[in-house]
Amino acid sequence: MSQYPSELLTLIAHLKKLPGVGHKTAERFAFCLLDWPKEDIKKFAYQLDILKERIYPCSICGCLKDNASCTFCDVKLRDPSILCLVSSPRDVYAIEETRAFKGLYHVIGGLLSPLEGRSIEKIALDRLTNRFSEKDIQEVIIALDSTLEGDATALFLKQKLNEIGIQATRLAFGLPMGSSLDFVDYGTLEKAFTGRQTF
Amino acid sequence: MSQYPSELLTLIAHLKKLPGVGHKTAERFAFCLLDWPKEDIKKFAYQLDILKERIYPCSICGCLKDNASCTFCDVKLRDPSILCLVSSPRDVYAIEETRAFKGLYHVIGGLLSPLEGRSIEKIALDRLTNRFSEKDIQEVIIALDSTLEGDATALFLKQKLNEIGIQATRLAFGLPMGSSLDFVDYGTLEKAFTGRQTF
Repeated sequence: MSQYPSELLTLIAHLKKLPGVGHKTAERFAFCLLDWPKEDIKKFAYQLDILKERIYPCSICGCLKDNASCTFCDVKLRDPSILCLVSSPRDVYAIEETRAFKGLYHVIGGLLSPLEGRSIEKIALDRLTNRFSEKDIQEVIIALDSTLEGDATALFLKQKLNEIGIQATRLAFGLPMGSSLDFVDYGTLEKAFTGRQTF
Repeated sequence: MSQYPSELLTLIAHLKKLPGVGHKTAERFAFCLLDWPKEDIKKFAYQLDILKERIYPCSICGCLKDNASCTFCDVKLRDPSILCLVSSPRDVYAIEETRAFKGLYHVIGGLLSPLEGRSIEKIALDRLTNRFSEKDIQEVIIALDSTLEGDATALFLKQKLNEIGIQATRLAFGLPMGSSLDFVDYGTLEKAFTGRQTF
């Protein structure tokens, strides 16, 4: 029985590390890549090679930046009195799409997960509390996932913020837009009732 | 509204060219890649960079080979009297898995598709007919997909082979192993009836 050439196997191993990519899909990707023009594949390789050198987290807010100054930290463009806490740099772009928020961001870099033994690192907490010492932030919005881990992290952060005398709010829970009541789970429906508002 | 850094957008554009990968998946891959250790991503980039230099089609059979001699062309290991025609180098590995075939391979490099205006290139045909002038091949097995394009190509190749006085067989059609009759489509069932065998 013949096996794939070893270089192809190595490539497949790399591709399998991408999220949701199993062995079959990785094989499919690898064979597709073999069909790409050499030039294209070289450009792709180059792009990967330089990725972490050209894009890295801002040392202040943790959002992604390239070599220019961080646009998310620019107080001329943004309101420095509101700070939004998110778990990953990706969430920032989702929030920006809404155009509902014009304040500053702060990326925590992961959620608490007692089950997987993940905690918020002290260094990340220090980085967060440091931001309050310098700037005059008046409002903190916690924009974390509405999952068990998101809830745990939000509670933990709320406590830490209260300790240094800062009140925090969290994003509203309720029906997602366009959803019909029959298809909404009980948990969401309950939250929607608890959080009902006059209109 | 802020956009992703341009280097990230370029990477996403590359990832989107992989089969079955849309914009959302490409974004997910890109953010996952940003989380990889720098070392891992460099190795992945290197693997892509060297891919087409280290792995290329054998000039005789068209199977993938690395710098060593082609194991599929080695007449010491394989029966040179049978030739199996396949459409892509990938099919070779699938057939090898079965251990049912020990002859030589020949990769045509694509199927006829009148709808998409694809034909078998003259150069590929010449490469195929050349193989019969040198070696003493007694049997030709056409192992192409059981699709419209596979059928068209098989008929076309059969004709070409008959012209140079060579008889060809094609893989059997019928029920796939483990299938139940209710779930098999009519086309397959019809083929299974036509091709019924004593046992």
